[in-house]
Amino acid sequence: MLPYKSLIQTDRNSSVSLYIQVCNSFISLITNGTLQPSDILPGSRVLAELIGINRNTVKLAYEELVNQGWAESIERKGVFVLSKLPIRAKTVLPQANKNNSIQEPFIWTNNFKNAIPSKNLQKNILTIDDGFPDVRLAPVDLLMREYRSLSRRFHGRKFLHYGSSKGSEHFRVSIGNYLSHSRGLTVSPENILITKGSQMGIYLATQLLLHPSDNIAVGMSNYLSADDTFKYAGANLLRIPIDDHGMDVDYLEEILLRSKIKAVYVIPHHHLPTTVTMSAERRLKLLNLAKEYRFAIIEDDFDFDFHYDNKPYLPLASIDHNQNVIYIGSISKTFAPALRIGFMVGSSAFIEAAASLRELIDRQGDTLLEEAFAVLFDNGEMERHFRKSLKIYKQRRNFFCSMLTSDFNDKIEFRMPEGGLAVWSNFDKKIDIIRMSDEALKKGLFIDNGNFYKNESFFTNGLRMGFASLRENEMVEALGILKKILH
Amino acid sequence: MLPYKSLIQTDRNSSVSLYIQVCNSFISLITNGTLQPSDILPGSRVLAELIGINRNTVKLAYEELVNQGWAESIERKGVFVLSKLPIRAKTVLPQANKNNSIQEPFIWTNNFKNAIPSKNLQKNILTIDDGFPDVRLAPVDLLMREYRSLSRRFHGRKFLHYGSSKGSEHFRVSIGNYLSHSRGLTVSPENILITKGSQMGIYLATQLLLHPSDNIAVGMSNYLSADDTFKYAGANLLRIPIDDHGMDVDYLEEILLRSKIKAVYVIPHHHLPTTVTMSAERRLKLLNLAKEYRFAIIEDDFDFDFHYDNKPYLPLASIDHNQNVIYIGSISKTFAPALRIGFMVGSSAFIEAAASLRELIDRQGDTLLEEAFAVLFDNGEMERHFRKSLKIYKQRRNFFCSMLTSDFNDKIEFRMPEGGLAVWSNFDKKIDIIRMSDEALKKGLFIDNGNFYKNESFFTNGLRMGFASLRENEMVEALGILKKILH
Repeated sequence: MLPYKSLIQTDRNSSVSLYIQVCNSFISLITNGTLQPSDILPGSRVLAELIGINRNTVKLAYEELVNQGWAESIERKGVFVLSKLPIRAKTVLPQANKNNSIQEPFIWTNNFKNAIPSKNLQKNILTIDDGFPDVRLAPVDLLMREYRSLSRRFHGRKFLHYGSSKGSEHFRVSIGNYLSHSRGLTVSPENILITKGSQMGIYLATQLLLHPSDNIAVGMSNYLSADDTFKYAGANLLRIPIDDHGMDVDYLEEILLRSKIKAVYVIPHHHLPTTVTMSAERRLKLLNLAKEYRFAIIEDDFDFDFHYDNKPYLPLASIDHNQNVIYIGSISKTFAPALRIGFMVGSSAFIEAAASLRELIDRQGDTLLEEAFAVLFDNGEMERHFRKSLKIYKQRRNFFCSMLTSDFNDKIEFRMPEGGLAVWSNFDKKIDIIRMSDEALKKGLFIDNGNFYKNESFFTNGLRMGFASLRENEMVEALGILKKILH
Repeated sequence: MLPYKSLIQTDRNSSVSLYIQVCNSFISLITNGTLQPSDILPGSRVLAELIGINRNTVKLAYEELVNQGWAESIERKGVFVLSKLPIRAKTVLPQANKNNSIQEPFIWTNNFKNAIPSKNLQKNILTIDDGFPDVRLAPVDLLMREYRSLSRRFHGRKFLHYGSSKGSEHFRVSIGNYLSHSRGLTVSPENILITKGSQMGIYLATQLLLHPSDNIAVGMSNYLSADDTFKYAGANLLRIPIDDHGMDVDYLEEILLRSKIKAVYVIPHHHLPTTVTMSAERRLKLLNLAKEYRFAIIEDDFDFDFHYDNKPYLPLASIDHNQNVIYIGSISKTFAPALRIGFMVGSSAFIEAAASLRELIDRQGDTLLEEAFAVLFDNGEMERHFRKSLKIYKQRRNFFCSMLTSDFNDKIEFRMPEGGLAVWSNFDKKIDIIRMSDEALKKGLFIDNGNFYKNESFFTNGLRMGFASLRENEMVEALGILKKILH
């Protein structure tokens, strides 16, 4: 007889009744071949004693097996596995996979059961987004023309072959020039890796920097996808308060006195979600702390290009290049989100290792697209695009904020952002944002429900409201719907 | 006085001279703020005693510090940190980062120091590659026309926004139809994730399946990038022999009797590198073993589309769909390598989790490109492309193999592959492939040096020689160069 005592596992605390558990165990033994067609099952009394359950429970289990077509009962002889087994069971017990691990075909780890589904997918309805660019402003057609034209030209054909996992050499030179002109960040192509958007930069840096139970300092409120990336690496998140001047570096210093920190993640321009900009004083202090305590700064500067009121601060990386700072930027966030292009800047050794890791992840980017972007950077189209967008976005910001002031004075508290593409809006405590989001959708407006901005220590009744992707008439319509719901 | 004894670290075995090491240590103390402007340095006699080196060495170090502009020597008073420090040292000692760990700005782990650099980058010279498609055959311009045209159309504009991390819904339906027609693999869109080439499928599956010290079974010879992906996850690789019928599943079974295996990675069509196809009998046995021992099969079927002599076997996944098999395929490998498109098929729960992980890695693919490919699948262009290519590649295989037979009879041993785009070529033991590769390059031919195919248990003097990307006249030229070198 088979060692049923160890083969048949039951759990009295399970919500699945005991006889179903026993039945499922037998189905597994049959489908995995341990029990063969025509094999006899142990007598109900014997099995009951072996596995310590009531004999009637075993009988019920056998009845269920017979009913489902796995076994047959032959009078005075016993219960046998069906001699001619069906290929596939017609009915599967509904709780089988949830509660009886023996039914899972193989073992894997799902770390993402509670993942918040991504929001702001493409929709054909009016949308107040998280702060995305208006794809209607981007010179997409110029890019596509280059893309197609490159692929037709003889010399462009080589870009269809495998290329470097760091990205097109030409594009890295173009990005290098752009970083130097726009933000005083002087680096060579070997300090640059072309990513698929800033998220890949965050992922690569995380994997190189953080091991399980390493500490990383992040904002009390923070970009959820970055937090999730750090958690995925097993890192321990230390939350640092964010006030009107950005991350509280004095608080960080106190933590550093007692804990080893491997990295600090900052969004110094227009912190996500709250849009505050880190002061120059704090930037310098953070750099000094990094040197003193030898931690890396992951500087996510995806929002550098749109700053309305004065010149943006230079990145931390441009003060301290190639030393403690890993600098991450995005073109997807300023051009069109679905065209995944970003960059990561660091020491050449760090970039080299990141490129090796990237080879394991997706081998390389779309060289042809990178080459096409390089043309737009080189011929000044990207700069024209940034200048034009900046002007339009500033008008939109002003218009949007004046509407918020006039129409939502007692409902929404906000500060006009110095840059970026969204207004951080604190809703009156009496307003249920989740319900508001649901009701808006019924009226043809998509607006987020705020869950994406919350974490275990930050649960303000707030939302980012993107103004950049809406024309003034669209803002009037969108905020009109919101006003009706809230009044 | 500062605790110089612990602050100044020297290494007598280093190739960097001692005085430079001391000098570099002081530069670190100055740049990290431990030593402030105008601080006095310890007397040379005192320091020499403290750290146990010759006093003259300390003097030399101080001279170097003064020369580099970090310190000033004031007669009869001593050496002081410069009161007005330069922002940046003009000269950095070349060996500083390599040998003096105190100079490293932060701690990170480089798992990729010994990575074999990717081969077969785009080159404008004649190339015998690893088995890549001929990009000149792919209907790239049709694709580009769709790509551009979609981006201009009103309804296409939505594909420039954020989309699903699983890939375009439309494209997943098209791929579903293609899988069903071409290989009897009937799945729904929720079983499909669009990747950036098969490598991303391998990476995602690995991350969900394997934890540090988990076992994965792989071929004795195997695709190096897959091996590296498993190793990166900390997995333990168990090597299974590959013979003329593919992976030796009896050997695998013996291992399963004593060891728990989480997953088996197979390339059942045209194993990489050796191009053998797994027999039907072994396929069924592998599936049965997977059920019995509850392991996952990662089926990398990147080469399904090109099979010349008879109908290809159906994938393992089409016999056992949604159960033990995670099925990975590639369009980059049949169209153009730089256009990164592939797919992964699995249970909806597995695909859902993989999509969540993918959000952390690069958020999503290029939706517009996916939509453009969907059009090419829907209107039959892709099928035409496959049919046309298959015919041409078969001719090229035959021509290439006949040249190998006639011109390299005593130098290269090979078997004509049933499918795929490369010939596994075993070179005579007397031939040094690395030198051959170097010499070929000098004569204008790029051919790999074979290191990519070796691992700790496989070191045949072999090479994959891709025939598909070469026209007959190019083959004559390429093999002509090789012949001259080897004779």
